[in-house]
This record gives sequence, structure tokens and C-alpha cells, in this order.
Amino acid sequence: VRPALIALDWGTTALRAHLLGTGGAVLEARAEPWGIARLPEGGFAAAYDGIVHGWPRLPAIASGMVGSALGWVEVPYRPCPAGEEDLAASLGTVPGRDLHVVPGLLDAGRPDVMRGEETQVVGALALRPELADGALLLMPGTHSKWVRVAAGRVRGFATYLTGELFAALRGHTILGRPARDAGAAPEEEGREAFARGVLAAAESPDRLAPLLFTARSLVLTGRLGAAASVEYLSGLVIGDEIRAGLAGGTVPAALIGDPSLCRRYTVALGLLGAPEPAVLADAAPAGLWRIAVAAGLIDSAAAGDAA
Amino acid sequence: VRPALIALDWGTTALRAHLLGTGGAVLEARAEPWGIARLPEGGFAAAYDGIVHGWPRLPAIASGMVGSALGWVEVPYRPCPAGEEDLAASLGTVPGRDLHVVPGLLDAGRPDVMRGEETQVVGALALRPELADGALLLMPGTHSKWVRVAAGRVRGFATYLTGELFAALRGHTILGRPARDAGAAPEEEGREAFARGVLAAAESPDRLAPLLFTARSLVLTGRLGAAASVEYLSGLVIGDEIRAGLAGGTVPAALIGDPSLCRRYTVALGLLGAPEPAVLADAAPAGLWRIAVAAGLIDSAAAGDAA
Repeated sequence: VRPALIALDWGTTALRAHLLGTGGAVLEARAEPWGIARLPEGGFAAAYDGIVHGWPRLPAIASGMVGSALGWVEVPYRPCPAGEEDLAASLGTVPGRDLHVVPGLLDAGRPDVMRGEETQVVGALALRPELADGALLLMPGTHSKWVRVAAGRVRGFATYLTGELFAALRGHTILGRPARDAGAAPEEEGREAFARGVLAAAESPDRLAPLLFTARSLVLTGRLGAAASVEYLSGLVIGDEIRAGLAGGTVPAALIGDPSLCRRYTVALGLLGAPEPAVLADAAPAGLWRIAVAAGLIDSAAAGDAA
Repeated sequence: VRPALIALDWGTTALRAHLLGTGGAVLEARAEPWGIARLPEGGFAAAYDGIVHGWPRLPAIASGMVGSALGWVEVPYRPCPAGEEDLAASLGTVPGRDLHVVPGLLDAGRPDVMRGEETQVVGALALRPELADGALLLMPGTHSKWVRVAAGRVRGFATYLTGELFAALRGHTILGRPARDAGAAPEEEGREAFARGVLAAAESPDRLAPLLFTARSLVLTGRLGAAASVEYLSGLVIGDEIRAGLAGGTVPAALIGDPSLCRRYTVALGLLGAPEPAVLADAAPAGLWRIAVAAGLIDSAAAGDAA
């Protein structure tokens, strides 16, 4: 296996780099806290040169916020439907370097946008080809994405602000105060409170807004422990997201993201009667490889039996 | 008109005091930033003595968080249904002082709780007796309350975290960033963006969570000005609250609260086809007076034709 591609997942808060070899095999992985909002002195160029230091001169490809208006080079959103070929045909390039940047996707309806997740989707379809025919993919996180795939292309998607909403509620409203004062709940009590929140969001005819306050009123009336209330709150916001996401009648076939967060979503999906989805921890390197191959950045011998 | 009662509205962040005379007339009003979370040196006693300084020795009554577990004296929640007589029969007292504290209310169903708003409701019914037979009252704010009144008593209520949710989203998520960077929008543009948010929340089949992200995606796709996006976000959360509140089939007959916030809610209610409600700026002194009279704290001559 010889080195063939430098693959970068370059978001707002982190920069991750993979040296990929023939067929897309991961030869080496590196990570730095050099997201586009936290660049080192010297900016994008210094971050790039730093993270690839010592690696051979190779074609490079990046996805994520590096292609946004605040990134190194702005690559316009590509409208849906779009798959790896469409993304490969719309790459931006960083002047003076052999670095190619994957566009984000636009769902013009709502409208909705993504940058970085489109590459994870391509990777997921590479790792699990059975998803390509038609599937709903759920990417939990700061900005959860529910992505509809058909015939190997993203047809459309919806973003839920769940992770950021939870962080803002926990850190900056009265709902987070009991748990801030009380510390962490025992694990079992926390699990129960999370499930209770999921079910409250799923079963109530109410929308989320009036339910949020129950994270306080249940504590004030002695029906919920202070420490566990933050787990209940997590259950409310995740349960609300899943209830809304399932309203289309399709269940997610796969989760893509942080393993512990995916476990949390798997529990919530199960509570709402959805079957257990597949879980993919990180599909970005596989996605970047596929797009690079489709764009002809890899010589045909190295592309091999592209993963 | 001679002085008859000291009436305190004592919340988390502010302490307001009224010297009331015969019949409940306001003789003098004072305010200090001595909410129960911001007490001066010397605590509750120092705050109390400071704000009533120079006033005659009179019976005193207080409502709000001063009666909570973190207050001067904890007064248990009174279950709904409850009216001024029920509240008057359940007053707490501060040992060693002639200060009586109004209990909060509990709606056991959801459950839901309030402290302070119950007194505003009593005042609103005194100021607008036609509301007492049966009405929905809306008290917008940090924790908006939708209060169902019948036969002069609070039957039940629901709390929406709207104000605090908006502040957390604006101040501590990516949704607030465009407006933080761009400053305030021109007034007309802001009004339009607010209305657009209200209608988006009201007309969409979606729940709030996936709509929130449109406050970002509309800006990123050039369909919404950065400065106006915070007004759109305000419209989304207020529109979502009102849509949920109207789902019961009853429209609010009156708004009670800060006049500029009530104007915002009046606009939103109008956009959703609800008739213009009455607006009451501050009903706390009238409510405290009524509860004090019902509790026999005022001698009968001074009680007069109780307002």
C-alpha cells in the first residue's frame, strides 16, 4: 500500500487529516484544534503545512467549513439531488496548492445547507453499499442532519439544532441550574431520566416549548432529581427531534457520528419503536477518498478497488 | 386617601414596592435591583427595611420568588383551581415582621408552577372584571404563562420558556451570530423579518427544532439579512408559542406584561388571525391589594370600595 491522497476534514473547531493509501486505506491519522475559527498564527496555510508536515507531496482534498464564506476558499453550495459524481464535478481549489475542496449541499426547499456531512454520506454509502438504493441517514450532533438518500444521491435533508439547543439550554437557562448545582446523576438514574424525557417529548400532544419548562417544574415539585434533570432535558430535545424526524414515516437506517451520542440516539429511537440502526463512527475519510477518485485526483493504479 | 398597605413584587432580579392607600390607590412606587438572587448585604431583612424606609408601619404583603425555596420564607404551591380567596387563605408570614407572602400556584397535571403571576392574574381580574367569568390570559416574558380563568379562579396554566429560549439562542448559538456581527436592522426590515418568522412557525407543518436552523440557512443563502435574522428568530419562537397556545381553540382575551413585549405578541396574534387582546402593563399592585383585603389585612374602613 503506497500513499495516494491527503484527506482533510476541516470544520469550525477541528482539523483532522488522514494519509490514505492505495484503495483508500488509512495509513496515518492526525488531528489539531485548528478549525477555521481557531487557526494558528499564519492562518490556513500554516495550519495546512503543519498538519501535512513530513507527508509526501500528494493530491489533497478537504471537506467542511474550509469551503465556506469564512473558509480558505469559498465553494458554492451544490443543489440537491447530488452524489459523489456531482460533488467531484464541483470541487473548488486553493490557489497555488494541489488542494481541492468539496462543496456543501443546498436543499433549496426549506432552505437547508450542509458542509462536511455530504462527504460523510458519500463515505457511508461506500462503507455500506446497501444504503445507496434508498435510506434515511441520521447524523446526530451540534446540528443534527436527517439525510434522504436514493439512487446513490442525497435527495434532501433537514437540520435540527439539537446539540446546540441543548448546550444553550443547559448552560444558559434556568433549566440547567439544578444539575449545575447538583453535579452528575448516578448512571442508572440518569438513564431513566433520559428515557422519561424522550417519552415525554414523543407522547405529548404538546410541542417542545411548553415541555421544556417541565425540566424545572418536575424538580420544583419533587418528581425529578436535580442531578438527573439535565438527562431529562437531553431526552426532551432528542425525543422532540426524533419525533419530528420520524413524522415522514421513514426510520433511519444508519447513524453516523460520535459513538456515545449515537448510543443515546439508538436508545431514543428504540423507545419510539424504531428498529436499531447501523452505526458508523467516522465516514469522512472514505467519503473523501471516493470523491477524489471520482474527480480523477488519484492515478488509476492507486485508485485500485476503490473502497 | 391614607396609607393602608405595603405591597411588594419580589422576583429573582428585582424588588418593587408600592405604598397603597384607601381603596388600593397607589401613593408611591419604588424599585431596587434587589431580587432574591441579587440581595444587598444584610440579605432579605436589609432589602426589606431599605425599600420601605420612611413609610408608615403597615401590614405588608409580597408575591413572587420571595416565597420560593430560595426566598425569605417558603410558601408551598397552592393547587389549582385557586382564586384570591384561596391565595388569601394560604399566605405565609415572615417571622418577626408583619409581612405576608402569597403562595405560588401548582397545575398538577403537567405539572406546572408559577410564583408572582397568580397575583398579576388576581389584579387583572380586579382591573377588568369582565375577564373573571372565563378568559385566557397571556403573560409574555422570560417564562410566558398562558392562564385559563373561569369563575374568578385560575383553572390551569402552561409555561413557555420563550423569552429565556430566545435569549439563549441569540446569545449562545450560531443563530445569533449574524445579528451580533451586523448590529441592529432598520426598523421596517426588522418588522418584516419578525412577521416572516411568526408565519414560518405558524404555517409550517414542522415543529420548532428544524425551523430554527432556517435562521441560519436563509442568511447563508442570501434570502434574509444578517441584521434582521435575530428578528426572524424572535418571530419563530414567539410564533411557535402562540401556535401551540392557540391549539386549544381559545384566543387570549388579555396580555399582561411589559408594553413593548405585549406589542410584539399583539402583532403575532394578529398575524395568526386572533383578535387584538386587551393589554395590562402591571397588575401586581391591584392583585396584592385584593389578596390583602381578602385576607383581612386591611381594616374595613381603609378597604373601602376595594378596587
